[in-house]
Amino acid sequence: MIFVLRLGHRLPRDERITTHVALVSRAFGADGIIYSGQHDGSLEKTVESIAGNWGGRFAISYEKNFLNVIRDYKKKGFVIIHMTMYGIPLPELETKIKTNKKAGESASGNVLVVVGAERVPKEVYELADYNVSVTSQPHSEVAALAILLDRLQGGKELERNFDEHFKGKIRLRPNERGKTIEKTA
Amino acid sequence: MIFVLRLGHRLPRDERITTHVALVSRAFGADGIIYSGQHDGSLEKTVESIAGNWGGRFAISYEKNFLNVIRDYKKKGFVIIHMTMYGIPLPELETKIKTNKKAGESASGNVLVVVGAERVPKEVYELADYNVSVTSQPHSEVAALAILLDRLQGGKELERNFDEHFKGKIRLRPNERGKTIEKTA
Repeated sequence: MIFVLRLGHRLPRDERITTHVALVSRAFGADGIIYSGQHDGSLEKTVESIAGNWGGRFAISYEKNFLNVIRDYKKKGFVIIHMTMYGIPLPELETKIKTNKKAGESASGNVLVVVGAERVPKEVYELADYNVSVTSQPHSEVAALAILLDRLQGGKELERNFDEHFKGKIRLRPNERGKTIEKTA
Repeated sequence: MIFVLRLGHRLPRDERITTHVALVSRAFGADGIIYSGQHDGSLEKTVESIAGNWGGRFAISYEKNFLNVIRDYKKKGFVIIHMTMYGIPLPELETKIKTNKKAGESASGNVLVVVGAERVPKEVYELADYNVSVTSQPHSEVAALAILLDRLQGGKELERNFDEHFKGKIRLRPNERGKTIEKTA
């Protein structure tokens, strides 16, 4: 299983970025997102409505204490991957992360991806099994998350048969020049 | 060369998303971004300041008439790739796009990536050489762009030696648990 933890959601500033983080999590095959910072009912509604129409099982929930979330998932055997531009470049960690092996542990296959906002406290860097950077340049947590989820799944999240994962009420039929939307219900 | 064309920038709604689109373009090795919609001096300043400090050659410019931009790049031999969730899944087009071969033409290696906003006019779908989807699910133009740029460059934009491409005044030294920032000037 893959869960995403989004830190420090602020209104109105992060409205759209956090929505993108949530929708990328879902579209790229994560099982759910937990967010902290400010509670945002409208974010939850948007994400639940898209998941309801487009299918797949995807959960969104709010937790005030994000350090507890990280500790809980750690206890449950999840590997904690913190996305930060200060971290180790993804290609150098990819094999390690994929086999999910920590010293003396067997691979559980379960991952919690932590996506920061403006200021991330030191404890997050310390609790994380891996602090991972995508390009070591400033850009976007949305892009960094997409690339990580892509690498974790070896690109299979981009295949058309990934549709089977969603089975939504709405589904797109790929089109060379236009838009084809199918309603399945 | 790779250029990105961002359509329909709206203030204040798209401030951060377009900034992310621009910074992802830069961090993932594109040569520049052209945007249309509303002119936004503050967006240009932000992007130019980051490019100035973090290095690399990256240009940002505004053009009102985006169809003319597409037509111009087409004439110059650029392959036009329009990112749209309605398009053909990226894995099905990847080889074609990489060899950049259009019927009867040789590969120029030059690409214009078109990133839409809310409503993209039909002409864009028609002018594009490829209408490309990343997952056929609703998510984020920031993520779609990152994945495309990643595939176009075979992942080399994530390698540590890609730093050589930037040679900025600021540069990060990858760190397992903290933040290491180097000033080179």
